[in-house]
Amino acid sequence: MPSFTVFKGSKKGIVKGTTQKSDELSGDQVLLRITASGLCGTDLHYKEKDIVLGHEGVGVVEATGPDVKAIQKGDRVGWGYQTDSCGICTPCLTGRETYCRNRAVYGVRNTDQGSFATHAIWREAFLHKIPDNMSDEAAAPLQCGGATVFAALQGVKPAETVAIMGVGGLGHLAIQFAAKLGCRVVVLSGSDRKRDDALKLGAHKFVATKNNDTLDDGWAIDRLLVTTSAQPEWNKILPMMAPSSTIYPLSVASGNLEIPYMPLILQGIAIQGSLVAPRAIHRQMLTFAALHDIAPIVETLPMTEAGITEGMEKLTKGNVHYRAVLLPKL
Amino acid sequence: MPSFTVFKGSKKGIVKGTTQKSDELSGDQVLLRITASGLCGTDLHYKEKDIVLGHEGVGVVEATGPDVKAIQKGDRVGWGYQTDSCGICTPCLTGRETYCRNRAVYGVRNTDQGSFATHAIWREAFLHKIPDNMSDEAAAPLQCGGATVFAALQGVKPAETVAIMGVGGLGHLAIQFAAKLGCRVVVLSGSDRKRDDALKLGAHKFVATKNNDTLDDGWAIDRLLVTTSAQPEWNKILPMMAPSSTIYPLSVASGNLEIPYMPLILQGIAIQGSLVAPRAIHRQMLTFAALHDIAPIVETLPMTEAGITEGMEKLTKGNVHYRAVLLPKL
Repeated sequence: MPSFTVFKGSKKGIVKGTTQKSDELSGDQVLLRITASGLCGTDLHYKEKDIVLGHEGVGVVEATGPDVKAIQKGDRVGWGYQTDSCGICTPCLTGRETYCRNRAVYGVRNTDQGSFATHAIWREAFLHKIPDNMSDEAAAPLQCGGATVFAALQGVKPAETVAIMGVGGLGHLAIQFAAKLGCRVVVLSGSDRKRDDALKLGAHKFVATKNNDTLDDGWAIDRLLVTTSAQPEWNKILPMMAPSSTIYPLSVASGNLEIPYMPLILQGIAIQGSLVAPRAIHRQMLTFAALHDIAPIVETLPMTEAGITEGMEKLTKGNVHYRAVLLPKL
Repeated sequence: MPSFTVFKGSKKGIVKGTTQKSDELSGDQVLLRITASGLCGTDLHYKEKDIVLGHEGVGVVEATGPDVKAIQKGDRVGWGYQTDSCGICTPCLTGRETYCRNRAVYGVRNTDQGSFATHAIWREAFLHKIPDNMSDEAAAPLQCGGATVFAALQGVKPAETVAIMGVGGLGHLAIQFAAKLGCRVVVLSGSDRKRDDALKLGAHKFVATKNNDTLDDGWAIDRLLVTTSAQPEWNKILPMMAPSSTIYPLSVASGNLEIPYMPLILQGIAIQGSLVAPRAIHRQMLTFAALHDIAPIVETLPMTEAGITEGMEKLTKGNVHYRAVLLPKL
């Protein structure tokens, strides 16, 4: 050690490899043994790249560098999409380090490490302690999926109507967070297939958009979280939005956002970009989830070439119910 | 009286007509004699419609209805895009009556009246007193153009960088407001043609986008007001935006807003629809403009078929410098 087994993308599929790190931990580095990793839509974007995959990690601390302050050997910690930032720019100084221009994020920097691996070394500053009553496999999908939806719910008022479009990895977490934040929760889904699940997760109303269901004015949507990978049919959605409401497009998509222009102006609607969560909000998310028993519904798979490949195939087909979690093969 | 001369749109051009109203004013109605009217881009959209045109009006009160409270005969008052709302819905109860679903706005309700006319009758509730030191012709373009840009500057912090795209009717007012609000003001314009004017109006920097000028990071834009009728070249603009910044598309356009998707997410950028200003903000705008000597640069034309036609032609060609104001032919 520290020489880890890692799983990387490639044109031929998932490949096993080894990452070699310096023998000594420096600064606030923390060595951890990975105990669970979520599998997120963003991982699919990198599956053919020669980088170590995975960015929803949970592990147990095995060793700490000389400047580590609060984390100890044996602690359970998690990390997500972002693993470093400059610390001196305006976003960093104002609790928005997710928008630091020199941020280290998944797929862009530190690509010799990831959560599809036996171990990793990260800065303490970007690790988050896992609450005691939260399992590793529940904690893993919160590190990116949970953080993403919780950030998009910042500032929401309990009496507001929050709509979640899509009941998948992000959506099924967003329903739970919004419900526990006290909001009126509407789920917009293509078909009726996920109605029961959505209501069990805390939704108060369910709209199957393919049926041309709609909402009466009393349920006009104040905040919409779009978690589907396809762009919404805006002409169906916009009439359900309240004046001064906000749309958060959370799923990653290339190309242009295309949305009818005048309804935005005439109803004072905003479209708000949002990228995962800064650390302060990430930690509030973990505390809130632990307090309210918010947990992903997970399917576990072994952290092997075959397990990762199977998870990615299911995710591509929309067959994961609702978040795949990879567990080390014992 | 009350029988007024009005100017209406038609397929053949501007036509003079007469509007007949009841002889008695009821409720909080106010009869006013129009002394000036701005000519706004929105008027062009209605120039072929059989409605009375004009929605940037200033006049002198000639008579008041039985429930009028604060306005007196002889007062100078203005009105803009909105002339009524229900008063009982959530937007109305929260100072956002511009988004009332039963609002009366230009071109949609009360279309037998407008500011291209000799007189009009409006509810006191939607009239705004003109400050003493403000001329009629300066006050008129503020009733829609001024209100629109001032609303889009709500909540801005003095140290923020505000960019104004387009130096026209709205843009030249936005520059003045942003500068007097203490902001760092950047103007984005196609060519260098309006550089001197922009700097005189209070801009601190001028970027000619056709030259592929750009801004260094220290001037990253926190808030962008788009006042051009054409959609911006987003690929040039987005790299100049700060993290967590906001774009206000203020000009009216049909079709879709099309904007690259990922930069919005990766930098946490928002697109905020905004429609003129609620009355409370409209009145703050007038007070603020009077205090800081903010005034439109106007070209005056006679309020006649020929004058209106000439103004519309110049506006269509982008030759108005910077706001056309129609004055009654004495």
